[in-house]
Amino acid sequence: MRKITPAVLVLLYSINLMAGIAAAQAADPLPSWNDGASKKAIVAFVDKVTKEGTPDFVPVAERIATFDNDGTLWAEQPLYFQFFFAMDRVQALAPQHPEWRDKEPYASLLKGDVKGALAGGVKAMIEIVMVTHAGMTTEEFEQIVKDWIVTARHPVTKRPYTEMVYQPMLELLAYLRANGFKTFIVSGGGVEFMRPWTEKVYGIPPEQVIGSSIKTKFELRDGTPVIVRLPEPDFTDDKEGKPVGINNHIGRRPIAAFGNSDGDLQMLQWTAAGPGPRFCLYVHHTDAEREWAYDRPSAIGQLDKGLDEAKAKGWTVVSMKDDWKKVYPNETQR
Amino acid sequence: MRKITPAVLVLLYSINLMAGIAAAQAADPLPSWNDGASKKAIVAFVDKVTKEGTPDFVPVAERIATFDNDGTLWAEQPLYFQFFFAMDRVQALAPQHPEWRDKEPYASLLKGDVKGALAGGVKAMIEIVMVTHAGMTTEEFEQIVKDWIVTARHPVTKRPYTEMVYQPMLELLAYLRANGFKTFIVSGGGVEFMRPWTEKVYGIPPEQVIGSSIKTKFELRDGTPVIVRLPEPDFTDDKEGKPVGINNHIGRRPIAAFGNSDGDLQMLQWTAAGPGPRFCLYVHHTDAEREWAYDRPSAIGQLDKGLDEAKAKGWTVVSMKDDWKKVYPNETQR
Repeated sequence: MRKITPAVLVLLYSINLMAGIAAAQAADPLPSWNDGASKKAIVAFVDKVTKEGTPDFVPVAERIATFDNDGTLWAEQPLYFQFFFAMDRVQALAPQHPEWRDKEPYASLLKGDVKGALAGGVKAMIEIVMVTHAGMTTEEFEQIVKDWIVTARHPVTKRPYTEMVYQPMLELLAYLRANGFKTFIVSGGGVEFMRPWTEKVYGIPPEQVIGSSIKTKFELRDGTPVIVRLPEPDFTDDKEGKPVGINNHIGRRPIAAFGNSDGDLQMLQWTAAGPGPRFCLYVHHTDAEREWAYDRPSAIGQLDKGLDEAKAKGWTVVSMKDDWKKVYPNETQR
Repeated sequence: MRKITPAVLVLLYSINLMAGIAAAQAADPLPSWNDGASKKAIVAFVDKVTKEGTPDFVPVAERIATFDNDGTLWAEQPLYFQFFFAMDRVQALAPQHPEWRDKEPYASLLKGDVKGALAGGVKAMIEIVMVTHAGMTTEEFEQIVKDWIVTARHPVTKRPYTEMVYQPMLELLAYLRANGFKTFIVSGGGVEFMRPWTEKVYGIPPEQVIGSSIKTKFELRDGTPVIVRLPEPDFTDDKEGKPVGINNHIGRRPIAAFGNSDGDLQMLQWTAAGPGPRFCLYVHHTDAEREWAYDRPSAIGQLDKGLDEAKAKGWTVVSMKDDWKKVYPNETQR
């Protein structure tokens, strides 16, 4: 290979950058979004905060954007995908636990009876999560998630879960980053369930993923340091927990926030209440044909109070059916 | 103002970048470090992990470096600076608390008798921290810290605390960042005590500061969202807590870690135990003339087990007296 000097690198970079700028000016950064009020509002906000010398200009360091994950960046029906992970883990661990055959909630789960397993309520849910998410080191858990995410298939679509991400939101993430935003996930899901794949799938590195967590413990095992996952809840990154998690991890208030349920309402409220220009957006699941349609009475991803507040406050409400040309990346356009 | 087009910006940026590269090649990036084993070890490590096409090359995304704060980036004698903050707050709040005149640990503190105040042990310490760090919103606390950090003076040097940062470590932070590292603080100090000034002083943004924390709570006050600081410990980012905090906030293992006390040992162990090239460094306080000299028996910043392990494992141990040309930024070179 010929030696590339720094000066050559800079020139290559400049050419690349100028080409990129030209392309960006020519091409639509949000091609999967229909031209409508939602897309206009997004572009208007980004234009506003990036225009230097205006009162609405926001320095790059303060361009923090936070995204919910389940139902905002990827689908969440008929159950949160992390719960399918937990059920798959129960199946995988069953041979080591013969006692599960006669013990709830495992007995029902192993027979494929999810409803029966969940009859035990929150207690049963927590037991399933703890038995599948704790007891191993953080590195062992990371490998379990990495193996699962490439092999598991969604029960309805039969696709990998990472193909059930929303193409318009991937474009939105890239568009914001191209305009100097730092994009974060702020999800009720487990932080260590998301981090093994968010960089590849969303371009969001592990240190920009905030989520729920269980307690962990550092220890030396025969002189080798490990971090062990304990069967004890630590932080719930949902509802009032979202602004707390944002404050704890980021330490500054986002100027833009994106969600799809009442669990995101406090994050949007916290974002909206800061000084200067703010942008809040709800993804509204209105597309029963290409995805799912649900809002006010839904057990998963309920959007009730949030929908009222969005209307009252003039937040952007995206109708998946009307605003999105396509939902998933591997989908022919309508 | 003339309009600056993106192309002009790119050209300006390129010129700037080329000038910067030329300057970096010509100038020593660590001018306050004496040429010795410590400096050589730092430069050799950075050269190694940034050389593309070699087995030791580390991609930019994985170049995570973590720094302790007290005693590693700024001084910590005769007491942790955050404790001086707490004492100043007790003085400031005293008029609203006439009962403190007859109540320990306040009565002693208000008379300037620190030893008397600390006679109450950990319980007294926690009480002082909670009364000065909790009960307000996060934004109110941020303002209190910002006001204090510009006005407060160190009892011995009479300088602002932010002038008692270590010049060689500022250069090291900049050198690592210039080589694609993401630099994090991982401190036993309060995370919200550090964030208001770390970006300005160290170039480390709030989202890259990890520290100890108290519980917080999101609430609506007359419709306005606030986060309130509660008088309840949440997370202690010290000793075994440091790898836990790193895992929780960053989600990947650092490849380089910098500390000065036994409180940093587990962070260094966790860093050293990862695969591929690793760098661990202890700052050893050996300079009684320009700073302070202390290690094994010190109550503040004790370095005992860590010193043994550093020697056994071949970690870099910096002697402030021998390795540093200057300690503080505003100091003439020896």
